[in-house]
Amino acid sequence: MGCSHNMLGIRGVLDYVMSHLNPDGKSKIPLGHGDPSAFECFRTSIHVEDALIEAIRTGKYNGYSPADGLPQSRRVVADYLSRGFPYKLSEDDVYLTCGCSQAIDLALSVLAREGANILLPRPGFPQYEALMAYKGIEARHYDLVPERGWEVDLDQLDAIADSNTVAMVIINPSNPCGTVFTHDHLAKVAETAKRLGLLIISDEVYAHIVFGEKPFIPMGFFASTVPVLTLGSISKKWMVPGWRLGWLVTCDPHGILRKSQIIEGIKKLLNIVVDPSTIAQAALPQIIKKTTEDFDQQTLQLLSQAADICYDRIQKLNVLYCPAKPQGSMFVMVKINISSFVDIRDDIEFSAMLSKEESVIVLQGSPIGLKNWIRVTFAISPSVLEEGLDRITAFCMRHAKNT
Amino acid sequence: MGCSHNMLGIRGVLDYVMSHLNPDGKSKIPLGHGDPSAFECFRTSIHVEDALIEAIRTGKYNGYSPADGLPQSRRVVADYLSRGFPYKLSEDDVYLTCGCSQAIDLALSVLAREGANILLPRPGFPQYEALMAYKGIEARHYDLVPERGWEVDLDQLDAIADSNTVAMVIINPSNPCGTVFTHDHLAKVAETAKRLGLLIISDEVYAHIVFGEKPFIPMGFFASTVPVLTLGSISKKWMVPGWRLGWLVTCDPHGILRKSQIIEGIKKLLNIVVDPSTIAQAALPQIIKKTTEDFDQQTLQLLSQAADICYDRIQKLNVLYCPAKPQGSMFVMVKINISSFVDIRDDIEFSAMLSKEESVIVLQGSPIGLKNWIRVTFAISPSVLEEGLDRITAFCMRHAKNT
Repeated sequence: MGCSHNMLGIRGVLDYVMSHLNPDGKSKIPLGHGDPSAFECFRTSIHVEDALIEAIRTGKYNGYSPADGLPQSRRVVADYLSRGFPYKLSEDDVYLTCGCSQAIDLALSVLAREGANILLPRPGFPQYEALMAYKGIEARHYDLVPERGWEVDLDQLDAIADSNTVAMVIINPSNPCGTVFTHDHLAKVAETAKRLGLLIISDEVYAHIVFGEKPFIPMGFFASTVPVLTLGSISKKWMVPGWRLGWLVTCDPHGILRKSQIIEGIKKLLNIVVDPSTIAQAALPQIIKKTTEDFDQQTLQLLSQAADICYDRIQKLNVLYCPAKPQGSMFVMVKINISSFVDIRDDIEFSAMLSKEESVIVLQGSPIGLKNWIRVTFAISPSVLEEGLDRITAFCMRHAKNT
Repeated sequence: MGCSHNMLGIRGVLDYVMSHLNPDGKSKIPLGHGDPSAFECFRTSIHVEDALIEAIRTGKYNGYSPADGLPQSRRVVADYLSRGFPYKLSEDDVYLTCGCSQAIDLALSVLAREGANILLPRPGFPQYEALMAYKGIEARHYDLVPERGWEVDLDQLDAIADSNTVAMVIINPSNPCGTVFTHDHLAKVAETAKRLGLLIISDEVYAHIVFGEKPFIPMGFFASTVPVLTLGSISKKWMVPGWRLGWLVTCDPHGILRKSQIIEGIKKLLNIVVDPSTIAQAALPQIIKKTTEDFDQQTLQLLSQAADICYDRIQKLNVLYCPAKPQGSMFVMVKINISSFVDIRDDIEFSAMLSKEESVIVLQGSPIGLKNWIRVTFAISPSVLEEGLDRITAFCMRHAKNT
């Protein structure tokens, strides 16, 4: 254990791009990370703010919480996630965490053992690689295939899994691809994982952030095929990532995780790791209960509109290309036709120069597994997004070969 | 890395005692942990609640914070901790954390390396042992000497430190002893650490919770002798441990921590660990600024009164004994004259039976390094404390030999 060069995480990766910002340049346009909460149009609901304030005013939630989380809030999460499930989650299946980040950390920590490896999607979310490097867990990558709407390359799972593979991670709705897995595809993933003896870590932090034709299907739906650790949070749906409240949920109707001591491991870890704010935990039932359909619809409509703008304008450029129109999450993967550029050699240079010249921040593709791609978030105010795309267009025209 | 039996932490240790509670028994009296926030008389100040609510209502702090914490809040902590210091801390010295627990975790993590050991106080706080067991850092213990007001056995430091010893931990005001180190003693600790080439991790989570003759002196006062990592939080002084906001502060006027890559290590770790709530961070300047002298005085007066009650009543029992009257923190160490009991063999049995028969929770001494001692918190409402002491008295009379 120690600090390695792979330990950058999403912030470390974005820090590189930000370090190229020209302090005398244009206003910064953040197309790098999935946090639109600073834009007025994506401000959380007044009911969500009220729920937290009510919890504060009771004076009852200033103290430490139980290690697993407040029981009443665990119960509400269990009910909320069970909607449409073929079985019912109980409050004992839910562990409240400091955002989805801590849920990821817990899931990886409980599976960490000498020689273990875990299968990660490529492209993916760099926090997994960073934490696994720190914990000494080997990362093996399976591909998401752009030509097949970024579905999992199922055959590849067979090729890379071995007896030391303990789990596979899926991120659905997809960060970074902006796609949503179908019921059929999830069923196939579950069958493959079962055959390979893997459990599934399903990162659903963007759950219900879908605005295309495909509905969001929780992986836990298939938990009678294969045990699932579902990771989620209030960060994205309720636009409050800074409140740091999430959950790790064991979807395990056959009790396999209990038999294999994974539940016990989670409980032991929870005794020594930090808890989420007790106040935020206490507010959770009201946050879930009081959010109106209007708030959800408004958010999704804004995101849908922003996704359309982003996709359409990028497709108009000859030098950039999106293989799939985003249907969920807050991101799209964009391919750079690097041979079309005069003086830009790869995605790292592209991102650094775009930051320096146009103050537009995008995430380089290389650190998330795809060289000469970038990840662009469209989850910002539409007018700022348009301005960002104007600047990207100007940047591309300036640096592309004349054709 | 993995789950070991030493990984209990304070919660795991208390869980054992709580597991003996008789569900049909008397109302539970929590003399086990340092969290009086549930008692109305220890409720946080209205100004503290207001500060958090104002931060929520701005709508500006729903998003992720920088990895180090909000700059304006780091600056306020630097100014706050610099009061009376021989030099001035800067905002760059301050890293905001999820309570003091995460500050402990960070300090230990940044020092973890193959073969390293760290010196811990005995008696101490079990979170250190639990985290070090998890991280594979060897714990070596130095004694706090009851006959000398629980001061550090300085000679012992020489005996147990070796070339792999990277740091020593002090907890001042003391958890679990309730004592406060003098300026002279801290100077000697600093000189000894310097001579042995150790840095000091100074756990000051109970800073300013002092109500005896000795003032609280921060260890950072001696940082020109030896570099100090100061750990603290708003949990105790402001009675909001559930808000999970603390800090790790590098007191390092000579830049030794920078040269030895410790600062760089902290920054790398902060990129992959969870952040404290952005809202709580944003409220911090107002929390520090607006707290009135009245609130502090009222809290300290209550604690002082409770400490007196606790000490006086325990001293009246022949079978229990406090070597020092508490002057700070929320605890006192109590020795069990175990040979005076008919049917109780040690502190583990004492605590379990007290829980079962009287529903009074105290912390066993063995897990914190002192067999046949218990740690008692007096930081609860005075009437409940009196009731708890009544029950302890009855329990002792029932189980002690007739003399």
